Amino acid sequence: MKDNIIILGHGSGGKLSNELIEKYFLPHFKNDILSQLDDSAVFNLNGRSFAFTTDSYVVDPIFFPGGDIGKLSVCGTVNDLSMSGAEAVYLSCGFIIEEGFPFEDLEKIISSIKKTSEEAGVKIIAGDTKVVTKKSADKLFINTSGIGYININRDYKISSSGAKVGDKIILSGYIGDHGIAVMSKRHGLSFETSIKSDCAPLNKVIRNILKEDLQIHVLRDPTRGGLAAAINEIAKKSDVGVYIDEDKIPVREEVRGACEILGLDPLYVANEGKFIAFVASSDAGEILQIIRNSRYGENAQIIGEVVENFKGRVILRTNIGGERIVDMPTGELLPRIC
Amino acid sequence: MKDNIIILGHGSGGKLSNELIEKYFLPHFKNDILSQLDDSAVFNLNGRSFAFTTDSYVVDPIFFPGGDIGKLSVCGTVNDLSMSGAEAVYLSCGFIIEEGFPFEDLEKIISSIKKTSEEAGVKIIAGDTKVVTKKSADKLFINTSGIGYININRDYKISSSGAKVGDKIILSGYIGDHGIAVMSKRHGLSFETSIKSDCAPLNKVIRNILKEDLQIHVLRDPTRGGLAAAINEIAKKSDVGVYIDEDKIPVREEVRGACEILGLDPLYVANEGKFIAFVASSDAGEILQIIRNSRYGENAQIIGEVVENFKGRVILRTNIGGERIVDMPTGELLPRIC
Repeated sequence: MKDNIIILGHGSGGKLSNELIEKYFLPHFKNDILSQLDDSAVFNLNGRSFAFTTDSYVVDPIFFPGGDIGKLSVCGTVNDLSMSGAEAVYLSCGFIIEEGFPFEDLEKIISSIKKTSEEAGVKIIAGDTKVVTKKSADKLFINTSGIGYININRDYKISSSGAKVGDKIILSGYIGDHGIAVMSKRHGLSFETSIKSDCAPLNKVIRNILKEDLQIHVLRDPTRGGLAAAINEIAKKSDVGVYIDEDKIPVREEVRGACEILGLDPLYVANEGKFIAFVASSDAGEILQIIRNSRYGENAQIIGEVVENFKGRVILRTNIGGERIVDMPTGELLPRIC
Repeated sequence: MKDNIIILGHGSGGKLSNELIEKYFLPHFKNDILSQLDDSAVFNLNGRSFAFTTDSYVVDPIFFPGGDIGKLSVCGTVNDLSMSGAEAVYLSCGFIIEEGFPFEDLEKIISSIKKTSEEAGVKIIAGDTKVVTKKSADKLFINTSGIGYININRDYKISSSGAKVGDKIILSGYIGDHGIAVMSKRHGLSFETSIKSDCAPLNKVIRNILKEDLQIHVLRDPTRGGLAAAINEIAKKSDVGVYIDEDKIPVREEVRGACEILGLDPLYVANEGKFIAFVASSDAGEILQIIRNSRYGENAQIIGEVVENFKGRVILRTNIGGERIVDMPTGELLPRIC
């Protein structure tokens, strides 16, 4: 019976999500652009490259330390455009609101969207509002779609399938903050922490590194499924092996502690203001420096490299000198984390 | 208390929707493009005009005579692009699915999206799936956003604010079919009817009339709030008076009958495969003929004209020779109709 229905894991960003996409969506919607399955779809129109992306936000609770569903909905979509090497320009906002939702909260969320879109320098140019009866939706969902354009002509596309043997992997900062901040406020699970979501628009730090003479092959924001899901997907799509070093991956003590209590691995916890970049080894130092000098990139680290062996696999060199495979997450660890 | 919360009427497409937009969304998101509040946002990039639109679909039930939420989500967004005079090209699809939703139904909906997007000649290039726990959403919601481009250079923009005194108003066919078809299947309200939703992609019939030498000032699809809401909005935004003739407005006998039973006025019932065009009087005959020769436009009629008096008002000349004001709908007549 369970095989015939959608379960939470189908929305996790992990194995079940991929199966859903590969078995149901791709066979019907197959086209060159969608089939690349990157964070944004990149297409050409009139000799110019554009990026287009969509995301629905269903985070619970809608207000959490460091952000809210409004801020998240702008950051998430701006970041998806950035990860394709595109300059985010225009966003749409579609609200699905449960009857009885307080105007006071709506106003807070709208303010937050305004503030975040101003910081990111993008405009909300299209909108839609639907209201459904009590218990037909949980408070408020937001869909943001976004349009950007690609400024730099390269002879390759920045894409999850573009990692090359020898590439260095840069991570822009601490992982797990978003997931733990949201979980800490979840109904029935509240625990004490000062951790705030890292939710942030990454378009400016990305803009800083997008230079013609810097070889950036992959950009990716490790959201649902965390760093583990993002790197696994890149390893699989690029058909390369990936080594990462546990002692290079920045994790706050508090996040580590909360993960222990909750039985989670920080590698699998969602981020909303971090990115990973796979870059040519020769440019890694310069790119790392630019990221560290940019807002939201101060704690960036080179955390690993791409190898020829172990194609499609991610191997973690542990603190104590061992090695273990980091798998793609299967089910749903943290439902409604974004 | 009621003043502090969102009620169903805020999603109706009528007065409360407009208040919500004007009081909450516009003050925060104010920009030249959004403030026009047309079916699509039109913007220029590299000397080319593009249209961008978003809509969330929450129709209940998700399968109804003549269509389903998948078909609706493609038609609605393609039509919104068409109503700005744009050629629809690319769509995104964002699913919010309730845990436990049957794969069998998902497959039907995906097939329907595929079939409709093929008919319309548009590609789904970006997607997203979120799954929420039982009772956090009602079965399945879909957001589709769409991108199109504008092919014809005019010295004016096709827009709800573009109606001119003397314009003739063309309606492309029977009204009320979609609303009545959906209501006929609604839980607890089922009644016998053979009425099918008119849900259809209108981009081809619109393409046929978009010629440089034909003066089309306004295009609009009368969805939520029906013909009454659409024409009222045009009258207000264009600051003109509008006369419409009751005996020219095509309403099927069965729709009229169902409306009587339900206490509804067909003018306020949603359509998903109809449009109205405000066109220069001198071109009205030719445009009407093209529409009648196109699929989905066979029953088109000239239903009224734009006058200088009664600015911002819509007046119906009734069958029995009287006149009455057709008001903007206030609350929610038919929740979750699209």
